[in-house]
Amino acid sequence: MNSEAQLIERIARAIPSQQGGELRLGIGDDAAIVAPTGKTDWLLSCDAFVETVHFLSETHPADSVGYKALVRAASDLAAKGATPRLFLLTLALPPSRTGAWLDSFLKGMGRAAQVLGMRLAGGDTTACPIVSISITVAGEAPRGHAIRRSGARAGDIIYVSGRLGRAQLGLELVLGGSHRIPAFRKLLQPHLYPHIRIELGAWLARHRVASAMTDISDGLSTDLGHLCTSSGVGARLWTDHVPRVEIPARVTAKLGRTRLDGPLEMALHGGEDYELLFSVSPRKATLLRQAPEFAEAAAIGEITRGKQILLVESNGRATQLKPRGWDPFGRHSRRSR
Amino acid sequence: MNSEAQLIERIARAIPSQQGGELRLGIGDDAAIVAPTGKTDWLLSCDAFVETVHFLSETHPADSVGYKALVRAASDLAAKGATPRLFLLTLALPPSRTGAWLDSFLKGMGRAAQVLGMRLAGGDTTACPIVSISITVAGEAPRGHAIRRSGARAGDIIYVSGRLGRAQLGLELVLGGSHRIPAFRKLLQPHLYPHIRIELGAWLARHRVASAMTDISDGLSTDLGHLCTSSGVGARLWTDHVPRVEIPARVTAKLGRTRLDGPLEMALHGGEDYELLFSVSPRKATLLRQAPEFAEAAAIGEITRGKQILLVESNGRATQLKPRGWDPFGRHSRRSR
Repeated sequence: MNSEAQLIERIARAIPSQQGGELRLGIGDDAAIVAPTGKTDWLLSCDAFVETVHFLSETHPADSVGYKALVRAASDLAAKGATPRLFLLTLALPPSRTGAWLDSFLKGMGRAAQVLGMRLAGGDTTACPIVSISITVAGEAPRGHAIRRSGARAGDIIYVSGRLGRAQLGLELVLGGSHRIPAFRKLLQPHLYPHIRIELGAWLARHRVASAMTDISDGLSTDLGHLCTSSGVGARLWTDHVPRVEIPARVTAKLGRTRLDGPLEMALHGGEDYELLFSVSPRKATLLRQAPEFAEAAAIGEITRGKQILLVESNGRATQLKPRGWDPFGRHSRRSR
Repeated sequence: MNSEAQLIERIARAIPSQQGGELRLGIGDDAAIVAPTGKTDWLLSCDAFVETVHFLSETHPADSVGYKALVRAASDLAAKGATPRLFLLTLALPPSRTGAWLDSFLKGMGRAAQVLGMRLAGGDTTACPIVSISITVAGEAPRGHAIRRSGARAGDIIYVSGRLGRAQLGLELVLGGSHRIPAFRKLLQPHLYPHIRIELGAWLARHRVASAMTDISDGLSTDLGHLCTSSGVGARLWTDHVPRVEIPARVTAKLGRTRLDGPLEMALHGGEDYELLFSVSPRKATLLRQAPEFAEAAAIGEITRGKQILLVESNGRATQLKPRGWDPFGRHSRRSR
């Protein structure tokens, strides 16, 4: 009961995949057909989500794996100010995962597609010794408006949406075995079912308010590094201004104070928050106040002419901020995030 | 020396990835930016290529793995009459494969990109216990001209390009341990470095000559089944007309007659030939003669009103042709193809 054709049928039932609009032909043929209007740009990105590297099948609920796989891929579109439209799913699965696990996975992915307003346009399924997911996402932005990493200029103010480190706290709870405790449910949300800022990103692109933008997937220290390198600039981060996770006392009590990073460490290096990190010229600061979710954005520093990224404390003391976020091949890799 | 950033640099050096034309922003940012003209359709497809399922790292040369991973993905574009343009590469690798193996892999993929005229527009790299490759390809076709699987009508003639079964013969030589014998090099080519029919596919789309089309990736019996199911038709396949691999006596001698399928079996079920399978209305048969590579195409049967696919011998005897090609989750799956 698990031929490839039957799998494709189950996928199509669980995930929005109807044709219409620019999607002239969806799943079930060799390729999807998209008919762009020519008035917008299309943004394309792909993202891998691999068992044992990014998630643990025994620990992470299957519907979270499906939900998060799509959201984290779509975050790369939000990071350019694009509106997510379509995705393609490569699903490599052990035959043992093609039953109830897959149904739950697809349910989570279907829910994410609904939330994001995305449709499945194609994919490929294959057997594999471990669960390996690759998603290609396609989104639209007004022509020429997509925000690159490379446009930050000295004097621009650096903003971030949301509180950073919340995803790492959720991860710590999951790895600490506390993910089944109902009182912790809300704290797990950012790790298991992340929220991305599509509206804010699209608004920033439409109004050309941000000079550069990226999302925080690998951690602020790493992603700000990418943005600065692409733009050929440096940055000063105001330590006190970085909005950070609050760690409830009951979590510290449960997990033990020694095994947890502090809130600032989590905010600087935690990663997977999928918040937006963007630079804005001071002359656009007034316009920025009209942005959706502006109340949840904070100015956390400024772009500088140098190449260094400095962490500046309230007493003026500055230290260099080294990238210590996630790198799948680097020294700081951790398992299962 | 193997941070993700360094890996991306190596990839960009090995594979054509320059910006220009409709590709406004290539690799190195969160997403690629494509600016479609609005005059063409864009076709999207993705394809997984997984160690132990589709290839064996100890047996298949790394440059063949890279070459074939891209060509087989692009074949889905040729199958719709689209011209391949861009691709995104998800590369999940064990750290042990990030050295010489990766260089050779990238060299093969770079060569395929050159041959196909494709540019790398983006990707993702991650650690993984096995090599798992997923490629999303994007191609263009004149608006409304892409050829679907679903347009075949009773009375149409079924054509196939090339000789079928050649890829399976190459696979048998590889699995039989004969892939290092220089005299067999040419016979290995269809398995290790397949050729796809982009020009023929694009011509058929431009001139609206084919009513339906697909490529032979899983085997004629399976892929003709897909085309017929999508079109709601059946087919009669003329056994004598199916162009098939020639098995040289020295191969039979080497591998032993008993372990080899016969040429017809290979042609019907072998798969991975990446030839084009298409249907043409009889009133377009004259026009078809002007197609590039027409001399290498053969009429092998006709579309019928029923739902069955029949194999018709020269004496008129007809038997049902069951799909016995490749299915990654099915009974007939073989390892490493």
